[in-house]
Formats: sequence, structure tokens, C-alpha cells
Amino acid sequence: MSKIKVGVAGYGTIGQRLADGVALQGDMELVGVADLAPTLAIRALKEKGMPYDLYLVDGADKASFDKLTIPVAGSFNDLVDKVDIMLDSSPGGIGAKNKEIYAKKGVKAIFQGGEKNSVADVFFHGYANYEKGIGVDYLKLTSCNTTGLIRTVDCLDRAYGVEKIAITIIRRVADPGDYHRGLTNALQMEKAPTHQAVDLMTIMPHVDATGILVHTPVTHGHCITVLATGKEKITKEMALEAFQKHPRIRVVSMDEGFQGNASFFKYARDLGNTRGDMYEIGLWEDSIVESGNDIMFAIHIPQESVTIPETMDAVRAACKMQDTREDGTAATNKYLGIGKFK
Amino acid sequence: MSKIKVGVAGYGTIGQRLADGVALQGDMELVGVADLAPTLAIRALKEKGMPYDLYLVDGADKASFDKLTIPVAGSFNDLVDKVDIMLDSSPGGIGAKNKEIYAKKGVKAIFQGGEKNSVADVFFHGYANYEKGIGVDYLKLTSCNTTGLIRTVDCLDRAYGVEKIAITIIRRVADPGDYHRGLTNALQMEKAPTHQAVDLMTIMPHVDATGILVHTPVTHGHCITVLATGKEKITKEMALEAFQKHPRIRVVSMDEGFQGNASFFKYARDLGNTRGDMYEIGLWEDSIVESGNDIMFAIHIPQESVTIPETMDAVRAACKMQDTREDGTAATNKYLGIGKFK
Amino acid sequence: MSKIKVGVAGYGTIGQRLADGVALQGDMELVGVADLAPTLAIRALKEKGMPYDLYLVDGADKASFDKLTIPVAGSFNDLVDKVDIMLDSSPGGIGAKNKEIYAKKGVKAIFQGGEKNSVADVFFHGYANYEKGIGVDYLKLTSCNTTGLIRTVDCLDRAYGVEKIAITIIRRVADPGDYHRGLTNALQMEKAPTHQAVDLMTIMPHVDATGILVHTPVTHGHCITVLATGKEKITKEMALEAFQKHPRIRVVSMDEGFQGNASFFKYARDLGNTRGDMYEIGLWEDSIVESGNDIMFAIHIPQESVTIPETMDAVRAACKMQDTREDGTAATNKYLGIGKFK
Amino acid sequence: MSKIKVGVAGYGTIGQRLADGVALQGDMELVGVADLAPTLAIRALKEKGMPYDLYLVDGADKASFDKLTIPVAGSFNDLVDKVDIMLDSSPGGIGAKNKEIYAKKGVKAIFQGGEKNSVADVFFHGYANYEKGIGVDYLKLTSCNTTGLIRTVDCLDRAYGVEKIAITIIRRVADPGDYHRGLTNALQMEKAPTHQAVDLMTIMPHVDATGILVHTPVTHGHCITVLATGKEKITKEMALEAFQKHPRIRVVSMDEGFQGNASFFKYARDLGNTRGDMYEIGLWEDSIVESGNDIMFAIHIPQESVTIPETMDAVRAACKMQDTREDGTAATNKYLGIGKFK
Repeated sequence: MSKIKVGVAGYGTIGQRLADGVALQGDMELVGVADLAPTLAIRALKEKGMPYDLYLVDGADKASFDKLTIPVAGSFNDLVDKVDIMLDSSPGGIGAKNKEIYAKKGVKAIFQGGEKNSVADVFFHGYANYEKGIGVDYLKLTSCNTTGLIRTVDCLDRAYGVEKIAITIIRRVADPGDYHRGLTNALQMEKAPTHQAVDLMTIMPHVDATGILVHTPVTHGHCITVLATGKEKITKEMALEAFQKHPRIRVVSMDEGFQGNASFFKYARDLGNTRGDMYEIGLWEDSIVESGNDIMFAIHIPQESVTIPETMDAVRAACKMQDTREDGTAATNKYLGIGKFK
Repeated sequence: MSKIKVGVAGYGTIGQRLADGVALQGDMELVGVADLAPTLAIRALKEKGMPYDLYLVDGADKASFDKLTIPVAGSFNDLVDKVDIMLDSSPGGIGAKNKEIYAKKGVKAIFQGGEKNSVADVFFHGYANYEKGIGVDYLKLTSCNTTGLIRTVDCLDRAYGVEKIAITIIRRVADPGDYHRGLTNALQMEKAPTHQAVDLMTIMPHVDATGILVHTPVTHGHCITVLATGKEKITKEMALEAFQKHPRIRVVSMDEGFQGNASFFKYARDLGNTRGDMYEIGLWEDSIVESGNDIMFAIHIPQESVTIPETMDAVRAACKMQDTREDGTAATNKYLGIGKFK
Repeated sequence: MSKIKVGVAGYGTIGQRLADGVALQGDMELVGVADLAPTLAIRALKEKGMPYDLYLVDGADKASFDKLTIPVAGSFNDLVDKVDIMLDSSPGGIGAKNKEIYAKKGVKAIFQGGEKNSVADVFFHGYANYEKGIGVDYLKLTSCNTTGLIRTVDCLDRAYGVEKIAITIIRRVADPGDYHRGLTNALQMEKAPTHQAVDLMTIMPHVDATGILVHTPVTHGHCITVLATGKEKITKEMALEAFQKHPRIRVVSMDEGFQGNASFFKYARDLGNTRGDMYEIGLWEDSIVESGNDIMFAIHIPQESVTIPETMDAVRAACKMQDTREDGTAATNKYLGIGKFK
Repeated sequence: MSKIKVGVAGYGTIGQRLADGVALQGDMELVGVADLAPTLAIRALKEKGMPYDLYLVDGADKASFDKLTIPVAGSFNDLVDKVDIMLDSSPGGIGAKNKEIYAKKGVKAIFQGGEKNSVADVFFHGYANYEKGIGVDYLKLTSCNTTGLIRTVDCLDRAYGVEKIAITIIRRVADPGDYHRGLTNALQMEKAPTHQAVDLMTIMPHVDATGILVHTPVTHGHCITVLATGKEKITKEMALEAFQKHPRIRVVSMDEGFQGNASFFKYARDLGNTRGDMYEIGLWEDSIVESGNDIMFAIHIPQESVTIPETMDAVRAACKMQDTREDGTAATNKYLGIGKFK
């Protein structure tokens, strides 16, 4: 079978990682990436020797790339012409416009969390509803927090049954390289319920969910506390057993040195992971507490990289590369090196 | 009736505010404050013209005060000799030692949250268990988070009955003037369950409680999300009605401009409150969400000042100034100007 | 002599403090303040019982004030009709428009640093060029950093002569109540030379000045390091002697407990200063170092309140209340309680 | 010629990077690293498959390594027996004790900035005084800020002559994985002059230096503003020409996207650099300003990795691998891939 040809629209925080992720999939071919301006990410691409071909979207000033002697392989349309599927990580709203081009050219697409749900036929999560994405043309990925959250709730739900959850999202407010949208010495509220709870219910309609989100002035990962009510009592041991089997959940403890969100970033850097990224979410064993039929625990969401595996899953589903959730996620995990630590 | 004579041990963040609080009580007399070294707080006391008499604890270097021409009224023992009750906000562990002096001299005392529970006969909260403190010699106040949390849980419990709660504490890691114990760009976990949930159960043994605490790099107040399960369903309207009646809960909304914890600090400064302090906790109306029989909401805890009113309540209970929770808290509220905004 | 009638346009961070400052001047009368919407600052004004009359600027929705039962004394035009001079702390650019109204009605005005220099006849600093402002209709105040910086450079210059300076501004990026324009875990550069050096040369044309500004994620005050080259050698002792005489410079040391910018804020709160404000800049004695003919030192700028005294000076100059720099600044200092600690 | 055998003592932030750096040198052999406890860094080493042999220092609990199935190659003494030179990045003070072992066994050593100068025969910088280190047994590296600072001052000095400098260090207070020694919303002063200026004069005794250091709550790199007085006037163009030729200085501009310290970290991550590290310091072209005979500019110091190249230089000097500064630094640069971007 020939490799599935993949393009990436938008070479920002997510787009760069999508490109890296596709390049690691033995059964996919990264045709190229498309962007608008010679950002730091593009300058780094140039300094690395252009491992990926670069295409320019409409409105790009080609002269500014020429001046920096950055090779350009063609236009956005050229890229779309060459691929089976596009991973669209354009700024919010642009994806919906790009979809018209994809549709005209008969190319499939996976959109990221910034687009409206209506852009896609299915709101997708590799573990929770893989089968719903099989053969579908337009999928939208859950956002970073929702993606990580669903890993745990789906994990408990498949093992023991979950009736409802209540979450508190302690949100990192900016990425490590951001200067805008920062927050200095303040916790900022959002109106409840937070969209991640609502989104979870879209993917897992049999679970009731609500929650509150608070922005905090940090950059290395969100933290979510989850209170889950099982159909029957879920003990700490039962929860741990299920979590430890999940390839995309890394169970850690504070005693090992995982004191907080920054420890995961440090550990990923120490592992030599590219960009200091981690594909797994973290789950603190010593955060798990029981309360009646409820179980409560805290997870760590590496916001820059957590959606990459589920996006690879989405390509597999949309392009019918694997027919089941088990095979699809296993293929992604193999190529990304996920779960090796288990 | 003559005024109750009160002394304050430890003129730090809490001690300064206790002294200010006592000075406002029409039926109490602040005899003086005791401390060890010419800290910034003591230097400010001097620059203000010594509104309070200063006593020196054992180990203080009187020469260092003399050099700065700071008047000293006597020793710690001298202070204890002159009072009916001591408010002990010494650094953790010192209070237990001071207690020996209090006991010898037959003086009552209220200890702050940093001491072990065993230092006191009763673990006290003005609204939740005032009656238990009446006439008791040694009371210990709940910590800042627990004090604020109990205001809301006791409020709902008295109105509608509460069975259990699960909390997430988004803890401010340092006070505005701190340079030690800071945190920079990191969320730091603590092992669960967090002590505030355990403490609440000591005061309200009929409520089951658990929770997780996460430290965040901010200084202007903790945020707690509370999931409360009523004996019967508590709607948002029911909860709001109860909260709005409570003098020490300030119900606000994001639309008014209360975007987060820093807004309360700004607002208190704009009100002209001394030190920019606020005695009330904040509760965001637009954070309240229902989920089955559960109700979830977020509160703001002004960590520097929130325990002052309940400490005044404790004096009232210990010294039998008022016989009931209603009268005791009402007297405190009147003198501190709490609830005027209602 | 009757009191000078003063109005304040814009009741934000600066406007509130200008109003408080005017209210303290025994020879001025605060007629009222004008603003657009029921912000937290206006709500606090209401909760305090309307110590100042409120006027509404064009575009204000009076109904939104009525709904909150906030009394409105009239329109912006009504306010301007009643005053001798307006203190304009409107958002940047609005002041220039307001000037047309002031001009038409023959009312003087003092603009804050956000406006362009061209809005005013003289760029003003109470200590450096008071005489230039005497009787002038439109003055513009230096910005907070420039105001504090000039206090020190003018101080050394008058005492010993200063040839040139080079500064590094370590700028606080947001105010304590801000949620926008924050910065999280990043130092942000600005293109050099920084405008404060340029502005200083406008006020003190005989001094050569340059510098670099870096934004930092803190809220409690800017820090500036100043390297000043004297006409002759200025020793640490000489510098200290001059600084200690200046009423608006508070010389402190780290050993006293002034460890950084947050200590000034803490100290001002401990002093009981309204809003925790301080009118003086701080100067660390133990930061002063000599290097050849140069002297280097670090100062603290309380960004919210530092320009208030010099704005009062400006009123005095513009309205010819005092004829000399010495008398003008002394009157301001007396009414604001500045220099009492000396 | 056989490879120089190198060991690393202390596998922390610096030790990990020293090990990585040595492993890249074609003419050195990394024999192993020594540490005390199964930290996150050691756990990551295990998860990576033990690319480096691990030796245990005295006091290590071998059982705790066995429990985690982490292979141990021997004791600290075993490691020292096998090497020609040790890179000692133990916690401050331990290096001095280790030196006794090195001396007994006739092994050379390079100490990091945390040790006292007296531990070494020469205080070393690859570009500024390479020749002084040739054949010497014990060298001490300059600290991260001093290393980066000297690159620029030595660069200007060799090109044009520098008489004196005055610096302001805007210091990052913690590393990305730190939870202790943090700072939250505060700028913290240190007594002047800062040690980096003093240290520079030890290495470059013909330059007069002073400066002030301020700690800021960020983690991704220090910023230093440097005011340098040339023997003759150094223009911006002259300075730029010299800086751009230096392999370990990366000249950037804000317009390219290098808005602050976090941009370098982002860029290094985008480049795919291990751990997101950068060996070069950054220098903002648009920060350079002239003032009389002085030139002022701002540099960025990547604190975790900046001393690695100069430490490699130190091995080359101490072991007489290259006889000149030019050859020694060129070899280091070649193996670390430094200057490829030029």
C-alpha cells in the first residue's frame, strides 16, 4: 500500500508538531507545510536545512522569503493538489475558508480545536470515538484540554462505567514563546460551565459533565482536577490499574520528583524529546482520592503536543488506514514511540 | 461592661491585621502588640507614630529598637499580664510555647491556623460552631482557605442541608511582599486530600469532604472551586439566595468587572480599605453551575484578612461577650463594617 | 484667596489618585470627576458614598448608572464649566480632543504622559522646570518612569552637575488589577533608546541621555538603574547626601527589609497609605557604586502614584499659585504629607 | 592521538549538558557521569537506555537505583580512576572536596562557577584567557552571566579596545523545572557591585567594571545591558561588525521575531536543539545605542547551556589538545555545531 500523502496548513505551535508527527509515521508521507510569513518557526526550518517543503498561502509576500533565501515549493493550492488529506492548524476561522478549497479538490481534512464544530462532520477523539471517524471526509479534533481529559474519562468508562464528572481546569495562559495574551500575578475566571465539559458530552453523550476554568500565569501545561462518579464504586486501585495500562497516560508520583507541571517539561527535555514535548498526559498517583462513589484525581496536559497523537489517529480513521480503534491508536503509538515507558 | 483587653503576639501579616481589627471593636481594647525585631511592619508602626504599644518577646535585641528610636512598652510577659485574652499569630510552633505563659497567668488565647490543633480545646469558626467556643480558654482558628470555604458550605448547609463536598484549591503561593517561598512559572501539586477538606470535617463532621490543592504563582488571593452535593437538589437560584444574605460573602459577577482574584484586591484598594484588605470572600455568580444534585461554584479568598472577622468572633465566644452565633458575628460585622454593601 | 477649582477627566488608575490628591490640597477644590462607564472604580466610589461628584463624558450610557443608583452630577461640559483647570487622565488620544473643549471654555489643563507632547505648551516636571510652567495654559506631565528618574538626575545635577546618563529600565508590565497586556515568564525588549531618556533630554537639555527598557512580569513598581557621569567626580557619600535631602526620594537599604519593589508596596500598605500608594520613589543605598567619574544606583518607581505630586505642582505653576519651584513643590509636599519621614 | 577521557561529577542542570557536550566532541570520550540519587534526570537517562554509564558518589543509596533497575557502573572513585579529566558540576562546595580525590589520583579537573575561585589555579574563559589555561591542572569556569558577558566585552576589546563597562543584570531567578528559590511578582535587588563585574575584572584586569543585579520572576534566560566605554569611539556599525563575526554571539532583531528572552528558547526548540538549548548568546541589533564614547547594548544569556562551550575549551587548554585560543575554540565550535548559522 502506498503511503497516505499529508499536508499541513499553518506552521505555528501546533502545525510544526503535526508536521513532525506525520514525518514519523511510517505509513504517511509529509508533502509539505503552508504558511504566510517568515516567522521564527519558518526561519528555524530554513536554518535546519528545509527538512519539509514550504508552500505559501494566499496573501504571503514571497519577496520576504526570497530575501532570506528561504526556498518556496509552491502555493497553498499546489500543496492541496498533491495530498490525500490536509491537517489544518490555521488560525481560528481560516480553516473554514480553506475547507472550500479542500472540498473543491476532493481532499479530506482534519481541523484543530480552534475551528467551529460545524466545519467538520464528526468531532473526533482517537480513543473515545475512532469508529465514528472511519472514512469521514472532515473531522475536527478536540482541544488540548478536552483531548487529555477524555483519555482518562474514556479509560475509566470503558473499564468500569462513568456516570458523570465535574472538572476544574487550571489553565496555563500562554505558551513558552508568547508575549501577548499573558497574565501577570492574576487568576482570571471564565464563565461556567467551561467548554471542555460541554465538548466531552458531545463525544461521550452518556456522561454528564460540568466544570469551571481558571487561567493562571504559567506556560508549561494545564492541570485538571477531575471528580468522576462511577456507575459503581471505583477505588483508587481500580482507577490506577486502568490508567497504568493506557499508553497515553503516564502515571507519576510527587516522590519521584514530579512536583508539578514544570516537572513534565523538564523530564521531556531530559529525555531528549524534540522541543521538550511529551505526547502523554501526566497523572499524579498521589492525587487520587476516593469520596463515596466518587474518585478524584489530577492530570497534566502538555498543551503544545497532546493533540498530535489523536490527530494521527484521525488521519488513520478518515483514510481508512485501520478499521478499529485498537489498531488505529496502536499504529500511531508505535510510530510516535508512545507507551515505550510502560 | 468594661472592654475586653486584648493583646497580639506576632506583628506579621496576620498580626498587624488582628491589631487593626481589635482596634475597631468598640467593646475591646487593644493593649499592645509583641514582636521580635524591627521589621518593615514595625518600622511602619513607628513612622505612623506608634498607634499601638509595642512589647518585645524573649530574644529581641532591644538595642536595635533603641537605635531606631522605636518606643518599647515592655516585655511579652508585661503584655500578657495586662490582657484578658491573647491573639497569637506567632510563627508556627511558637504559639504552643507561648501557651505555657498564658496558662500560668490565666489568660485566654486564640491561635491561628499555623499551630497544631492540639494547642487548643476547640477548632473554631464563627459561623459554623460559635457555640462550641463559648467560655473556652483556648481556641484555634481555621486557616484562611478553610475559613472562607466553611462560610459557603455552612451557609448552604444551614439553608438546605449539604452531604458532601469536593474542592479544588488554586492556592496563591506567596503574599504580595514575599521574596521567599515563591514560585516562578510552575504549578506545584500537593498530596491529596488537602488539609482544608479534612479540617472542614473536623468543624462540620456531618459533611464528607475531599479535595486537591495546586499552588500557583500569584499573590492576590486563593481561588477554590467547590462541588457541593445537597441533601436535596440545590438550584443556582437557591444557592444564590443563601449566599447573597450572608454578610461575609460578596456575590459578584465577571460582567461587573470582577475578572479574577486581582479584581478584589483592586476593588478593595479603590474602596480605600486599609492595606487594600477585604474581610468578605468573593463568590462569582457566573461560576455557579448545576449538575444533577450537585452545585458547583468558585470563591475568592483574600488570604491576608479573611480570618480577622472569625478571630474577633472567637474573642466574643471565649470571653462570653455574646451568647449566640447570631449576636457574636453580628457584633463583629458591625464594628468591622462588614455587610454594609448588602 | 479663593481655592482653585479642579476637575478630573478619566477616573482610572491615575484619575482616581489625582482626585484623591486634589482633595488633600488645602488650597484647591475638587469639583468632580468625569468618566464613561460604571467601572469597578466608579462602583467603589458609589460604595464609599460618592465622596466626589461624578460627571459623564460623551457616549456614556446614563441608564447603566441609573440602574446601579449611582448619582450623576452632570455632563463633561458641565464639569468643565465649573473649574479653573482640568487634570486630564483620559485614555491616550482623548486628551487632545478634550483640549478643544478646554480651549473654547478658557479652562487650563494638565495632560498625563499618554498624550503626545504637542498637546501642551510645556513638558513639565515640578522639580526640574517649574518656572517654565508658570501661567502656562497647557502642561503635559512626564510619564511615571521619567518623573521618578528626573527627581534623581535633577537632584544630582543641581548639587554637583551631571553631564550624561545611561539607564536600564526594568519595567513592570501591568498594574495589580490588570488582566490584559500581561506577560508570563518572559522578558520583553523594546527598541532602544527608550523614550524616557529622550524625554529627560527635553526637560533637561544640558544632559545627554540614552537607555534600554525591558518589560518584566511584575506589577508592583518599575526599577531603573542609572549610570550618571558628573561634571566632576560624584562620590557615593556626595550622592547620598543630596538624595537624602530630597523630599520625594526615600533612601532605603536592603538590610532594613527593602529587598525589592514589592517591599515598597508592602511598606505603604503597612503605613496605612490609601490604596497602598507611595508618592516618593525609593532609592537603595546599597545599590550605589562608583566607577571612575560615574556613579551608578537603582531606584524604585511606584507607577500608579508617582506622578501625582508633580501634577499638583503643575496646577500650582499653571494657576500661578506659587511663583517658585521651592514654594510650589513645598506646598504640594505639605498637603500630601511628603517628606514627613525625613 | 587517543581521545581524552572525560568524566562528569553531578548530573544536574549543568552536568547533563556537559555530558551531552563531551559526547559530541570527536576527540574526547565520555567515560561516565556520577550522581547521588535517582533524580528525574537519572530516571530519564534510564528511560533513554543509559547512553552514559552511571557511577555513584559516596552516600548514594544503591538499593534505590537497583529497585528502579538502573544499571550502576561503579563508584565515583572508579570513575575518576578511568579518566584524564573531570568536569565537576557538583553542588557548590562539593567540588572542593572532590578536588582532594582528583589530586590524589593525578586527574585534572574543571570546576563550575558555584565553587570558590581558590579551588582552581586559573579562572578561565575560552575566548578571553585560553592561553592561561594551557596545561594547567585545575581550572574554574566563569558563571553563566559572566561567560556570556565576557564574550561581548572581549570581542569589542580585541577589535577596538575597551576601557570600562557598567552592567545591569536582569537575572532569571529559577530554571524551568525549579519549584524552590522562585519569585512571584517581585523584583529582588542584590547589593552592588554584582559579582559578575568583579569576576570580569579578574579575567580582564585592564577593564574597569561595575554593575547592579536585579532578580526577575522568569526562567528562560538572563538579560544584561552593557554600557562599554571604548578607548576610542565605538560606533554601532563597528560594534555590529565585531559581534557578527563572533561564532558564539547570535545577532538578532526584534523585527525578526526575537521579542525577548523567551524567543530564544522557542527558537532553539524550533531548531530541534536538544533540551531546547542554545550555546550562543543573543544580542539584539536594535538595542545598540551610542552615547558619546559609550556604546550600550543588551544581550541574552541562556543560563543552562551557555557555559558548555567554554568548558569544552577548558578541557582543550588543560589537556593541551590545542595550543591557541583560535584552535581551541574552533575545535569546540566545530563539534558543537556553533556558528553554522553565520
